[in-house]
Formats: sequence, structure tokens, C-alpha cells
Amino acid sequence: MLTSRFVLRGVTLASALIVSTQAAGQSGTARRAQAQPQLQPATYRPEFGTMWTFDAPPIDYWRRTYGFAPDQKWLDHVRLAAVRLPNCSASFVSSRGLVMTNHHCGRECTAASSPPDSNYIETGFAARTLADEKKCAGLYVDQLQSIQNVTDRVRGAITGRTAAEQSAQRSAVISQIQTECNQQTKLNCQVVSLYNGGIYSVYRYRRFNDIRLVMAPEGSIAFFGGDPDNFTYPRYDLDLTLLRVYENGQPYTPSDYLRWSPAGAVEDELVFVVGNPGSTGRLNTIAQMEYLRDVGYPASLAAYKRALVIYDTLTRRDTSAARRYQNDVFGIANSQKAVTGYRAGLLDTLSMAKKRAFEQEFRARIAADPKLQAQYGATWDEIARAQRELASFSPQLRYRGFGGASTLLQLGAGLVRVASESGKPDSARLTQYRGAGLDNIRNQLTQPIPIDTAFERLAIAAQLRAAQAELPANDPFIRAALGGRTPDAVAADLVRNTRVGDPAFRQSLLQGGTTAISASTDPLIVWARAVDPLNREVTARATALNATIAANSEKIGQALFAAYGTALPPDATFTLRISDGVVKSFPSNGTIAPYKTTFYGLYGRSAAFDNKDPFKLPERWVQRKNNLNLATPYNFVSTNDIIGGNSGSPVINKNAEVVGLVFDSNIEGISNRFIFSSAVGRTVSVHSSGIVEALRKMYDGARIADELTGR
Amino acid sequence: MLTSRFVLRGVTLASALIVSTQAAGQSGTARRAQAQPQLQPATYRPEFGTMWTFDAPPIDYWRRTYGFAPDQKWLDHVRLAAVRLPNCSASFVSSRGLVMTNHHCGRECTAASSPPDSNYIETGFAARTLADEKKCAGLYVDQLQSIQNVTDRVRGAITGRTAAEQSAQRSAVISQIQTECNQQTKLNCQVVSLYNGGIYSVYRYRRFNDIRLVMAPEGSIAFFGGDPDNFTYPRYDLDLTLLRVYENGQPYTPSDYLRWSPAGAVEDELVFVVGNPGSTGRLNTIAQMEYLRDVGYPASLAAYKRALVIYDTLTRRDTSAARRYQNDVFGIANSQKAVTGYRAGLLDTLSMAKKRAFEQEFRARIAADPKLQAQYGATWDEIARAQRELASFSPQLRYRGFGGASTLLQLGAGLVRVASESGKPDSARLTQYRGAGLDNIRNQLTQPIPIDTAFERLAIAAQLRAAQAELPANDPFIRAALGGRTPDAVAADLVRNTRVGDPAFRQSLLQGGTTAISASTDPLIVWARAVDPLNREVTARATALNATIAANSEKIGQALFAAYGTALPPDATFTLRISDGVVKSFPSNGTIAPYKTTFYGLYGRSAAFDNKDPFKLPERWVQRKNNLNLATPYNFVSTNDIIGGNSGSPVINKNAEVVGLVFDSNIEGISNRFIFSSAVGRTVSVHSSGIVEALRKMYDGARIADELTGR
Repeated sequence: MLTSRFVLRGVTLASALIVSTQAAGQSGTARRAQAQPQLQPATYRPEFGTMWTFDAPPIDYWRRTYGFAPDQKWLDHVRLAAVRLPNCSASFVSSRGLVMTNHHCGRECTAASSPPDSNYIETGFAARTLADEKKCAGLYVDQLQSIQNVTDRVRGAITGRTAAEQSAQRSAVISQIQTECNQQTKLNCQVVSLYNGGIYSVYRYRRFNDIRLVMAPEGSIAFFGGDPDNFTYPRYDLDLTLLRVYENGQPYTPSDYLRWSPAGAVEDELVFVVGNPGSTGRLNTIAQMEYLRDVGYPASLAAYKRALVIYDTLTRRDTSAARRYQNDVFGIANSQKAVTGYRAGLLDTLSMAKKRAFEQEFRARIAADPKLQAQYGATWDEIARAQRELASFSPQLRYRGFGGASTLLQLGAGLVRVASESGKPDSARLTQYRGAGLDNIRNQLTQPIPIDTAFERLAIAAQLRAAQAELPANDPFIRAALGGRTPDAVAADLVRNTRVGDPAFRQSLLQGGTTAISASTDPLIVWARAVDPLNREVTARATALNATIAANSEKIGQALFAAYGTALPPDATFTLRISDGVVKSFPSNGTIAPYKTTFYGLYGRSAAFDNKDPFKLPERWVQRKNNLNLATPYNFVSTNDIIGGNSGSPVINKNAEVVGLVFDSNIEGISNRFIFSSAVGRTVSVHSSGIVEALRKMYDGARIADELTGR
Repeated sequence: MLTSRFVLRGVTLASALIVSTQAAGQSGTARRAQAQPQLQPATYRPEFGTMWTFDAPPIDYWRRTYGFAPDQKWLDHVRLAAVRLPNCSASFVSSRGLVMTNHHCGRECTAASSPPDSNYIETGFAARTLADEKKCAGLYVDQLQSIQNVTDRVRGAITGRTAAEQSAQRSAVISQIQTECNQQTKLNCQVVSLYNGGIYSVYRYRRFNDIRLVMAPEGSIAFFGGDPDNFTYPRYDLDLTLLRVYENGQPYTPSDYLRWSPAGAVEDELVFVVGNPGSTGRLNTIAQMEYLRDVGYPASLAAYKRALVIYDTLTRRDTSAARRYQNDVFGIANSQKAVTGYRAGLLDTLSMAKKRAFEQEFRARIAADPKLQAQYGATWDEIARAQRELASFSPQLRYRGFGGASTLLQLGAGLVRVASESGKPDSARLTQYRGAGLDNIRNQLTQPIPIDTAFERLAIAAQLRAAQAELPANDPFIRAALGGRTPDAVAADLVRNTRVGDPAFRQSLLQGGTTAISASTDPLIVWARAVDPLNREVTARATALNATIAANSEKIGQALFAAYGTALPPDATFTLRISDGVVKSFPSNGTIAPYKTTFYGLYGRSAAFDNKDPFKLPERWVQRKNNLNLATPYNFVSTNDIIGGNSGSPVINKNAEVVGLVFDSNIEGISNRFIFSSAVGRTVSVHSSGIVEALRKMYDGARIADELTGR
């Protein structure tokens, strides 16, 4: 699946936040012409990928490349058929409001809809009648009605001199645009910043709130192969949830929905993925990429490794722990796989050489125009300087604090910091503690949180040992955190003697405020008091540098748009995009990975692992095997450009018919985060034929299959 | 399959030649003690692999590692059950003389046994009765009866001062030992040099000459997945031929044959591969490995690439050419895959660091003993010096001559050289032209050989262009070969105007001798006359350097044996070895490659490629699919140490029962040529259960299956 527990899901949510706090009055075609006249015509650079916005579809590029140029009607139809879930993509796939998305995108509803004595995640579910369809509390679906460019209005409102003034003005105008739009249109309006602020657009959504569960297979077939197979191909997953949108208690009849392709995806066919990619970093400068490659990602990978060693130690001590920690271990292993993939893209010398060549050309284009050069010429160097400074105290930033995997350290740090930040004026607080943030953190600290003391001891000791190895011996953090003792001794003392694990104790400290914190003799509070100012110092310094990078990144985005216009698609922002691609096998493992898999392959992979978890088939799939046409296409790959957030996107052909359902990327595709390449990176989808075959033969779902296929 | 058309098969044959021209009087246990008393006990180094000889089985290592220590009876039984074909391995697998080997090992017999109107390679064959079994003309099977160490006798006979004298004496004493042994024992005796001459052993074989074909499946199922899947896993090949040994017109009843395991290979099981690995380079010094990594293999890879570009150009011109050149292209692609794999092992910094550490320890062991140091201390540096010198004129050696893919250039060169070498005394000739070599070459030159003129023009031009790019402009070869013209012009002229393609013309030149060659105005003969002395100069220089390397390599082998004894297995020599390993999955492609595949997987891979060649199933496998239990294990992987020549080796369990049939290595295993690692490299075998299931359900082979399983 695309949104793995740790990294990708995190990315999607984070990008969703960025979208809602940023902002964008012209149409897409106006944008296209806006800033380019004085420059040489810009041509498409494949390394920027193909996440096109619907107000600037690259019709010429498509015509040139595929001999296909969809008209506005086609584009409007596809846009309206595609919908967005809170953290996934989806689409209308029937005249009566069926919505198709991934299994993991509907997981909460599927679990919550289960009867008391059973769990649909384990048993699967297919509603026999409309009346059986289960309401998904809290779930909603957004349909993009229109896009309006509001860049001039946003820019016009930003008149302040300081970054803080500008930021406040930007937030205010975006908020104003959204409120006005909501009131005028009765739609859900969101201002989206594209090209890091190169343009601002208001996206207007119609929101549907009555969503019901129609069908979800067993988790074990939806996520067949589990974490080992995650991000890989060949693949055999029925990663599907079917929902239905209701209106006034009746199935909604959408004006636009995607018809079902009779054949499904076929080899070498042009296909489009329509969905909401979460976040990419293709506008990053070389300096930013090098920082991630050489500092940021290696640090993350080292932290994953430390965590895995801890789980391994615990499991060796107690074999029953293996089961208890299994999900955590798999989650970390998956994050490790993802970050290793991101970094692989940055370690690829050919890709980086392309990126470097692009940056030179880009800077030359800017330098060729004195006005642009005055505005943007210095940005690259400013980012590089800030990244260098961040790198210079990266170990201090990582270790002088409350990081690592320990829950206790985080709780202790939170208690001390809430006390110290509360006393400051809002603007002087650390970012997270401003406004409503403080109350959120206070609230979180009073919740009951289970403490695994065996894990805590190892996690604190591992964190302190790593700090000892990477920081100079005279670093004030080492002195404050260890006080001459060993990491193991400190960890043992803190875990054994602190009461911070007790929610009532935390409540009393929060109520007592600064006085209570200052007077506390709890060893963890004493420890956190000593570490807090050191942490605050590096955190504040990093925050300032990151603000510099963010401000300059925004300029880079503006410069990019000024120099290249919409010839290059903007970075992903969890908003609707259309990506072109081709159904295509790829070289893998010394041979060819086929463009599709079949149910034969599913049974083959299960049998090859002696039907052991996570390759164990649901009982239904064992019992009813002979019902299936085993040669039916099941999963397939294409060269479309996707990332977390695209989960659940429909794959459509030139007739705008569904040929598949996106659910993952292969491992080679993970490195597309910063530099796109279709050489070996692939989008992995459930084949439309496999969906219908499974519905009919496994889930007694003729009612649903007939509806999908328009019978 | 292991013996791919180009590289591996070549390796096997070459190593067979080496074996027959080299040579070794004590038992294995005596060997074990021979040279070690004064040194610290040597321990096993995994990077040397596990190709153990039967006279020095590592019983202690096996007991320590697996808790299994086979007795001499077990070892003798297994040795006698294993047999050798001219270029493959095999084994007795029934009481009535059935012999199991790979499909490609029996290919010639299978093709030759076909009726006039049909081809068993295409249709498959299974003899219904004994009377139906087809005689394989010329095929023989060798069974290893005994091994005797003859090192002292060989060494004692070598008294000469010069390398030439020593070489002649060595050949003479080996020949003498073999002849005596043949006469005394009526067996087929071969003196084998192990550890590059560290020890010499006489291997005594019983030869069986009446071999008949019992069963061979269709080539398309034996080699399912074709060249793309070659050297890879997961895999789905029934790479099987069953032969029968006859004696006096009746099935031979061997004293020792391998029983069939009821279960076949299971996960994590200890298994042994018993067979004849062709050639490894694990005793190579770092200098030799670096030369291959940095000079030799890159040159080979560049040549493959040039050849592929030529075929690509021809195919673009004429699409019907694609079919014509398909086999050549696949063959080169496979060589490319193999050499890329060999080189990958040398590019692996961790493996090379291990090898470097070993070489340091090895040299320190030698240096610690003044006598050994005097004998062997200088060898590493002498090899390094020779490799450096070879590298210094590597482009001249490659281009000043008749290399490349052009048949015409090779014919022209041969004609000129036969004339020039014939005039010299035998000892002054280039090695290939000495003794019977000259007549062989003369004979080859008179054979009719098809000339593809379109290919020739491109091949000659490509070779000359590459020479132009890599040699200095004033290189005498460039001046002689181009004479100021372009490579394309030279190639066009030679191909258009030469008569060398005509066998009668070649015959007349050979008959005319030096006079005819000197007087010829044929442009290719003129060209070859100009190039010949330049080529001769670099060839002679390289020959001398390679002789230095060979002489010092022999010393390295002797030193290794002196320092480590049989704690490390010798390099492969196409003689019988027993390798230990475990049936084991491995990390691959971001996930896990399962320890086995099943018939489900076979049908899955075929369906995923829409049953297109080379994933097309034989008609029988389509028609009779429902007969099969699709969950039957089909192929599997283990950590045994194999290489070309091991094709057809049985995989056996602790009870010496057949659990599988070796036919390939995965792509990760190719890099084991120089440095063995079982991290991801695997041996790929047909599972014994898959063989029986296929015989019974697909080939009406109950007669054969019953015989195998002892029913």
C-alpha cells in the first residue's frame, strides 16, 4: 500500500496540513501565459514527473508523446468523477454513487462497521443489498468543482517588511479568501500554494458526508504479502474498498462517474492516474537534496536501526515479545525501506547529474533577466548556507533533547516545556506551543499512555549511547544528561524511579505549573529541567534556519514558475492531479517483471511460502479457488507518477474507463520522490478484471459487479 | 541453465582442458597433515566456498556447523552414485541404471534421437518401454572409483631449470602416470592439479559407453523463461534429462545409486550438492582480481555492447533480421549478464576487503616461515607487476589485431599467420600454431563458413572505430589499419572486394603458402599482412606475461596448501566435489524470494506474459494442466556452492536421498566466482517432487516415476 504506517502516511498528513495553511485570480490558461514571454520557450523535463494540475493540462506534450489530446469535456468529466477522501484518493465508478478506493483507505470504517462478535478486517464484507450497506461515521468525500488562480490577490495583500508580518498577512488573506468563497459558493474552499508559492489557487470542493461501506475484502488478501511485499512488485493484492455516497438517504447519482473498461489494462496502453499525490521534493535545490542524502536520511536510518536492535533484544529475551512487537518492527522496517529508497534516488549519480544540469540552466535563465536575478538570484546560495549551518550542529540537534523512541522522555520534556513556555508571550514561544498548540499538548500529556518499561530502559540507554558516540565529551548535553554515569545507569534510574508514567502525576504537575515543575524531585523531571534549555537553544536555532530555507524555497518556486511556467508540473500538494503513463513491464532481478500478475501468481506465492503469514490466504480464497479463472489479470504496473496520497486513485484509459486501482509503487519507484524516472519505477494497481472476478466468484458480489460493469 | 551458450559453457570446456594437461601418491588423510605442523591451525574461510574434494571431506566443520558427520561408507556411496558426463554432472538414481542430469546436458542426444519428421527438443520424449530407449551415440558416463595423491612423484620428476624444461617434465610425468594407471587398472585415469599445482592427484574413472535416452521434456519447459530468466530466481524450469546406462545390452545395475526422497527438499534443511564444478578463481590474488575488475571485464563488456549495437542496427533496417539474430543477441546478453555478475563480486567493497584481509594474513603466514618466504614471498608482487604491465598495453592488445566479431578478419588473419608461422621452427611459433595446432587451424580455414556481409561491414567498422577511440592517433596499428581512411570506408572496401569469404580462394592461398600470401592483392590479405607483425608483437608480449602469472599462480596454490592445507577447498577443476548448504529463501527485490516455487507459479509467470515466447508453455502443459497438483514444489534454492560444470548435479539430504537436481545459480550467485558468499547467492534446482509429478501427470511416465521412487 502507498501510505505505510510510518513514513508515507506521515507525509500525506503533513502535506495536507501545509495545504490548509497556505494559499492563491485567473484561470489556468491565463497562468500558462503569465510569466514567460521574455524567456526562451521552456520544454518539459521528465525528471519533474507528470503530476499535472487540471487547470494546466499539458495537451501539446500529450499529443506529441501519445497522439492523444483530450478535450475540455473529457478533462472536466474525469475531474468530477475523481474524489478525495480525508487522506486518500478515490473515484465515482457507478451511476448510483459507488466510490472505489483502497482497502487501507476504508480501514477505519470497515473495522467500525463490524458486528460485536466479528471483525470485517478479518472476515471481509460485501453488502448483499442496499439496506446492508454500513454508514461510515465521520467519513466524507470531496469532489473538486473548480480551480481559481488567486495569486495576485494573495501577493497584493502581503505588504509587510518582516517575514513575520508577511506570514501573518498571508495567513489572513488566505483565510479571508476561503471564508468568502465558502459563503458565496456553499462549497468547501481551500487555498493551495503551488510551486512553493509560485502561484496560489483556490480549490472548491463539494463535500459529501453520508458515505456507506459496500464491500471490503479480508485484510489478508487486501494486504497479501504484508510488509515484506509492501513497495514491491510482482504483487498480488486486492487492495479495494467500495463505498457508496448517499444523499437524502438515497444512493447519490453523480453527473460524472467512470465507466468500467471491458478489457482492463493491456500492455503498452496509455493510461492516466487521477488522484491526489501528497508530497514530492522535486523543486528542492541540490543543497537541500545533498543535506537529506548526507545528513537527514542517514540520521533517520541510524535511528531506525537503533529501534530495530532494541526490539531484537527484547524478542531474544522473551519469544512471546516477537508477536507483541511485530507491528512496530514491520512499521520501522517499512520506513527503513522507504527512506532507503528516497536516498537511493539521491545517491544515483546519473539522476543527480541531471538535476545539477537543470539547476545550472535554471540559474542561467534567472541570471539572464536582471529583474528576476535581483529577485531570486541569491536564493540558492542562501539555502545552501542554511543547510550547511544545519548540518554543522546536526548531532546536537538530534541528541540534545527528547528524541529517540522513549515515551517517558517525551512526556517529561513536555511537562517541563509546557511550564516554561506558558510563562512567555505567545510570539516568544517555540512554534508548536503558540496559540491552540499549547492546549493541545497539555491535553495530550494528561491522556493515559501505556509505558513499556523494558522497552523504555533500552530506548533511553540507546539514545544516550548514540549521543555519547557522536557528541564531543565536553558537550553540555553529555554532562547534563549523564553526569558522569553510564547511559545504562541513567536509563535504569530514570525508568525505575520516575512517576511520569502515571497520568495523575502528570495532571498534578500541569496544575501546579512552573512552581510544581521547579520544586519536583522526580528524577525524570530533574533530568528534563537540566536538558530543556540546551534543547531549546538548538531547536530555536534550527527553527530560524528552517524558516530561511522555507522563505527561499518559496522564492525558488516563484522563480521556477517565472522561468518555466506550467511546462513543469508543481510539487505534489495532496490536490487533484492527472498523470500520464504506459502499462509496461520493467527489467528487474536480472530478468523481466511482467506488466501484470494473475490469480495463478497469487496462489503460487502463497504456496511457495507454505501458506504462512503474511502469505496466508483467507479461508474463502482456499475454499472457492476452483470458482476462479486463475488466468484473470490481478495486479499490473504502469509508468505513471504517483506518491503517498495517490492511494485509491483510479487508473483510466483514453475513453476515461477504469482499467485499474492504484495502491502502491514498486521499490524502484520510491526514489522518484525527488527525481522522477520511468526507467524502472512503476505504479502498482489492482487490475479492473481482477476486481470484477473476485467480486463475482469470491464475494457473491454479482449485485456490485453488475453495477460496476453497467450490466 | 548453468552452462550458457557463451561464457559458462566456455568456462567448463576450458577447465576440462586444463585438467587433462595438468597433473599428482598419498591418501587424502595424509594430505590433510602434510604441510601444517609448523603453522598455527588454519580455520575455514567462508569466502573460499564449499567445493570439497572426496579425499579431504571437512568432517569437523560439518559436525560443528550442522551436527552431521557422515562416515566413510556414506561418502563412498555418494561418490560412486555421482557420475560425470563430458561437460556436465549427473547421478545414478535407480537400481537399473537410470541417470539423472539436466535437459541441456542431454540435448545433443535428444536432438539426434528424434525421428526424421519430428524433434524431441520441441515435442519432448518419454520411452514407454525399455525397448523404446534411444542410444546416445558418442555419449559416455564416468564414475569416480578412487583418488590417489601423486604430488611427490610429479614434483620429484621436475628437475629442470627453465620453465620450458619444467613444463615438459611435468607433462611427461603426468602422461606416464596416466598411462601406467590406465594399463594397471583398466580404468580411465586423469591426473588433476589442485590448488594450482599445490597437489596433484590421479582420479580413476570407470567409463560407461552405452548410454540411452529415457526421457527429456520439451525444451520450452526445460528452459522456460529462456534467456531472460537464465541465472535468475524465482524459476520454473523442468531442466531434466533421464538417461540409462546399459552393460552388455542390459540395464546396468549399479552397486550405488541415490534413492528418491519421499518429501523432497524442505525449508532450512541441510543438503549436499555432489558434482563437478568447472572453474573458479578464488585463489586469484588481489592484483589478478583488480585486473579483471578494471581492465579485463570492462573490455569484454564493451565488446558485448558493440556487438549488441550492431545487431540492433541490423534489426532496425530489417525487422525479419530480429528473428535471424535472436539467438546471437540472447547469447551475448547472457554473457553480458554473467560477466556483469562476476564483476559485481569484485566491485563489492565488503567482499574485496575480506579478500584483502585474507591476502595479508596469508602473506604473513608465509613470511613467518623463512623457508616458505624464500620460496613464495615474491609471488604476489611478481603477479602484480605482470598484471600492471598487461594493463599498460591492454588497448593495443585488444585492437592491434583480428579481434572483434568479424569472421572475415579472423579468416584473413589466419591465412596470413599460417603462412608466416609455418616457416618457423615449432618452438618459435605462437603457442596455438605449435604441433598439431597448425594443422587444426589450416583445416578450419578450409571449411565452408557463411559470411553475413551486412554484419561484417558493421562489425569491422565498429572494431576500427573503437580502436580509433582508444589508441593514440600515431599508433602504428591505426596507421596500418586505416591508412588515413575512415573506419566505415575501410570496412566497406574490405567486405566488398575481398575473396576471403570463398573457401576455394582460401584453399588456394593455403596451398600457395608464403609465396601466394606475399603476392596476393586481395585487400583483406594486404590488410592482414600489414597488421600481422603488429599483432604478433603484442601477442608474444602478452603470452610471456601470462606465463609469468601462471607460474606464480601455481606457486600461490602451493603456498596456500602449505599454509592452510585442506582447511580451504581448492579451486574448481571439473572434478568431483561435495558442497554443503541449506535450503533457504533470500532477500530479493525489496522482499523475500521464497525457498521454493510451485506449478502455480509456472502457470502464473506464463499467464503474466500472455503465454508469449519464451514464456510459452508446451501444448501438453496447457492440455493436461488439470491433471497436476499445482501446489507441488517445482524449483527451489539452497546455499550450496556451484558453478558451470555442476549442471545436472544431484541435491541430496543427510540420508543421501535425491531432493533435487541442480540447473542454475541466481543472479546474485554469479558473483561467487571469485569470492563466495551465501548471503544472497543461491543454487537453483528442480525439486524432486516436481520431477515425479511431471513424469506421472504430463509424460505418461509412471514406469519411470515408479522406478525412481522405488515402487
